[in-house]
Amino acid sequence: MTITDRTVPGLGTTSDLGDLVALGCRVLAYRGLAEDILGHISVRTAGDELLVRCRGPQERGLLFTGSDDVHAVSLDGESEMPVGFSAPNELPIHTEILRARPDVQAVVHVHPPAVVAADLAGLPLRPIVGAYNIPAMRMAQEGVPTYPRGVLINRPELGQDVARALGDRSVCILRGHGIVATGDSVEQAVVRALNLDALARMTLQANSFGTTPPELSAEDVSAMPDLGSAFNDAQVWAYNVSRLQLAGLADPL
Amino acid sequence: MTITDRTVPGLGTTSDLGDLVALGCRVLAYRGLAEDILGHISVRTAGDELLVRCRGPQERGLLFTGSDDVHAVSLDGESEMPVGFSAPNELPIHTEILRARPDVQAVVHVHPPAVVAADLAGLPLRPIVGAYNIPAMRMAQEGVPTYPRGVLINRPELGQDVARALGDRSVCILRGHGIVATGDSVEQAVVRALNLDALARMTLQANSFGTTPPELSAEDVSAMPDLGSAFNDAQVWAYNVSRLQLAGLADPL
Amino acid sequence: MTITDRTVPGLGTTSDLGDLVALGCRVLAYRGLAEDILGHISVRTAGDELLVRCRGPQERGLLFTGSDDVHAVSLDGESEMPVGFSAPNELPIHTEILRARPDVQAVVHVHPPAVVAADLAGLPLRPIVGAYNIPAMRMAQEGVPTYPRGVLINRPELGQDVARALGDRSVCILRGHGIVATGDSVEQAVVRALNLDALARMTLQANSFGTTPPELSAEDVSAMPDLGSAFNDAQVWAYNVSRLQLAGLADPL
Amino acid sequence: MTITDRTVPGLGTTSDLGDLVALGCRVLAYRGLAEDILGHISVRTAGDELLVRCRGPQERGLLFTGSDDVHAVSLDGESEMPVGFSAPNELPIHTEILRARPDVQAVVHVHPPAVVAADLAGLPLRPIVGAYNIPAMRMAQEGVPTYPRGVLINRPELGQDVARALGDRSVCILRGHGIVATGDSVEQAVVRALNLDALARMTLQANSFGTTPPELSAEDVSAMPDLGSAFNDAQVWAYNVSRLQLAGLADPL
Repeated sequence: MTITDRTVPGLGTTSDLGDLVALGCRVLAYRGLAEDILGHISVRTAGDELLVRCRGPQERGLLFTGSDDVHAVSLDGESEMPVGFSAPNELPIHTEILRARPDVQAVVHVHPPAVVAADLAGLPLRPIVGAYNIPAMRMAQEGVPTYPRGVLINRPELGQDVARALGDRSVCILRGHGIVATGDSVEQAVVRALNLDALARMTLQANSFGTTPPELSAEDVSAMPDLGSAFNDAQVWAYNVSRLQLAGLADPL
Repeated sequence: MTITDRTVPGLGTTSDLGDLVALGCRVLAYRGLAEDILGHISVRTAGDELLVRCRGPQERGLLFTGSDDVHAVSLDGESEMPVGFSAPNELPIHTEILRARPDVQAVVHVHPPAVVAADLAGLPLRPIVGAYNIPAMRMAQEGVPTYPRGVLINRPELGQDVARALGDRSVCILRGHGIVATGDSVEQAVVRALNLDALARMTLQANSFGTTPPELSAEDVSAMPDLGSAFNDAQVWAYNVSRLQLAGLADPL
Repeated sequence: MTITDRTVPGLGTTSDLGDLVALGCRVLAYRGLAEDILGHISVRTAGDELLVRCRGPQERGLLFTGSDDVHAVSLDGESEMPVGFSAPNELPIHTEILRARPDVQAVVHVHPPAVVAADLAGLPLRPIVGAYNIPAMRMAQEGVPTYPRGVLINRPELGQDVARALGDRSVCILRGHGIVATGDSVEQAVVRALNLDALARMTLQANSFGTTPPELSAEDVSAMPDLGSAFNDAQVWAYNVSRLQLAGLADPL
Repeated sequence: MTITDRTVPGLGTTSDLGDLVALGCRVLAYRGLAEDILGHISVRTAGDELLVRCRGPQERGLLFTGSDDVHAVSLDGESEMPVGFSAPNELPIHTEILRARPDVQAVVHVHPPAVVAADLAGLPLRPIVGAYNIPAMRMAQEGVPTYPRGVLINRPELGQDVARALGDRSVCILRGHGIVATGDSVEQAVVRALNLDALARMTLQANSFGTTPPELSAEDVSAMPDLGSAFNDAQVWAYNVSRLQLAGLADPL
């Protein structure tokens, strides 16, 4: 398992994956990608298991996720949880993607309104931005796939359908539903969800006037460097954790 | 009377219906469904009475509702209130719906801008979302009725007109005015108002580009489970109460 | 001079008009009607004078207005201010409206983006809402006049032009610039500015889809009661002051 | 070097240019012009050097910039920084503009979504506002140039291209990327970025209805006074610093 640097500025070194899952849920909710209680994050652990954000007897929504909301589940969905806790209804999103994609270590599922709206409006997410957000540009250039059904992904077969729609990409839109974002770490999956949301918001705004925004030229695409995960993921993650701290939402986990 | 679980995480067990009405008013205002001072919530009590958010000598708007703003009124509008308090001008919305709908225990009336705008723009609230918000999908599939007049509902006959427009549905749009949402508890009525608002916001955004967003397929609609009120209502309520707490708005009632 | 009840819940009785002017500036800025440092409020006092929000050596924008930013000026623009303070460049807006309209006691000038945008887009403010906001409906029904120039109103002749454009109405749009709102009190002028802004925001949203929102019927207009200034102005004012308090912006003046 | 008055109300006299750069970064991020970690400010110092916002080992985004993130670099990009710090990838934006424009003392580079969206939508920034925002009107009247490539400006040749696109103007749009704003002080460059953003937001909103907003008349343009940098820049800066203070973001630097 390749997990990026766990040093979160301001929080000290975090070795607990459960804390990362909880923090990631709070970041996504704070940034508006997860209204109310819906959405979850999972991360693969040693031993063919995953840690996933569950629902407990004190459920208060993603913004208020605690480390004790995160529990281990096997890829077959088996688990031993404290009384009152249960895995998400849509656990198959996580288990089937982790099964189909050995390179993926973490999976985000949330409901960003802008991404859902852009898809429903028939607006493809094209590479209209460059240095504005390089990882978002790359996502758009590779093409963001869409799973066309709006059903709840509560059976393994449906999870397999989503995994097929995702293919070898990093993110996938679920029509009338939300998104899936993957990464080699919780931080990367969360930041990719944020980047997809930023691309969708720009797409909605730039398409409101009956004109078609120009795509980045091939020359500009090929000139664009990869600034690396330490820059693209770890620093953006640290920014978002700092915003949680400012809002009184980072402590205690 | 079937009221859902009153346990509000972080607030202890609440048995006082007046506290629930006050909290519900704050939630609706905090989430942007009730600008300024307009709107109210009622809940049926034993003895053919209702508790309703009134206006008092220290009126400061729905966001700052206290338990002492909530008073008992009979279905005929009779009450004995402390000096300076009066029932809302639009009390007939509450009394006539509670009279016409024995299954309804609580009634919300607020002015969500997105719902009013979508109706004025001629945009019907169709089932364009699925798992994004299942209760909103069901509302849209059943059809959201509209009461076509913009008048103040300050007479029993007008309240009866609104009750007729509502029919057997859970929510109703009042054109150029606001909405009515009903439930078997304060929590359910409040959360249904939030869901209607979420549907309207998505409808506005997805219809901004001259395309018609696709509806959920019949197959997907029929595959959608009912996750139950403990999930759909109580947990979303707990999330919203937690947001009030974070904002310094939950204490004291 | 008829000034509405000065009792501000939570702040005790306020007899100082300067405090009201300062609070009103903060309310308008907090609600997004006055970006940065631009805008001011005036109120007529005994002796043919007005109190007006001035600029001083510690100018920090409308959101941070203090009572000591408010100074007396004659209708001819003469004043004796502390060193470093000066009347607004656009003082003639206030003096000429107060001169032309003996019924007006207070004048607001701010730059609400939604009102300016609706006017630039050619969208008239029509009575599309009813009970959503009755005072806004009345404004729209009477017709909201527009002063068609975008110049700075820094000479008496320009102030007279604005007063003529305002005529006998309560509010006026200044194209590419902002608005003027008047009232028989600071509170009423501020709340009218808020209502005009609410109407413009609804107009923008309801007109975004190529359809023309229906106007309220004549029958509904004539059925609409006047709920009075204690309800329409004083309670909305109290709500807004409470929001300032919650935001840490009400104390000290 | 002509730097405007350094007296920042509430913060005492600030003579440290590094503090100003840090504060400016926070202002831009707080006002929504710089999402996440991207963007920077530079200021020319004596001795043919600049101070520029760098990236360090505790990078947490522009909103959390500290004085210790600001370091000296020569116009040739040479520097001696503490371990772990590095100049921005896009340092050539700063060095080449400062080299080409001896009149410029400070350079801002950020990614305001509204400006990028308006450009992608093909909406020119025209002088549609007057007294709403006089400096924005002047910018629009002079014409806001666009650099048409979306590439990362990480080589001197690209920085020279941007400087050429900027020409003798105060601001420049970088397509699919962001903006450059210049000034004779950090404060002026920051406030110009804010004004450009305000103009873009108004342009987006006023162009949403298929109509073309009217431009200010030549007569009104020529009647518009220059209120001076103490008013246009220093007071707007003081307002923005006060907002940081209210948000708990001004101390410590």
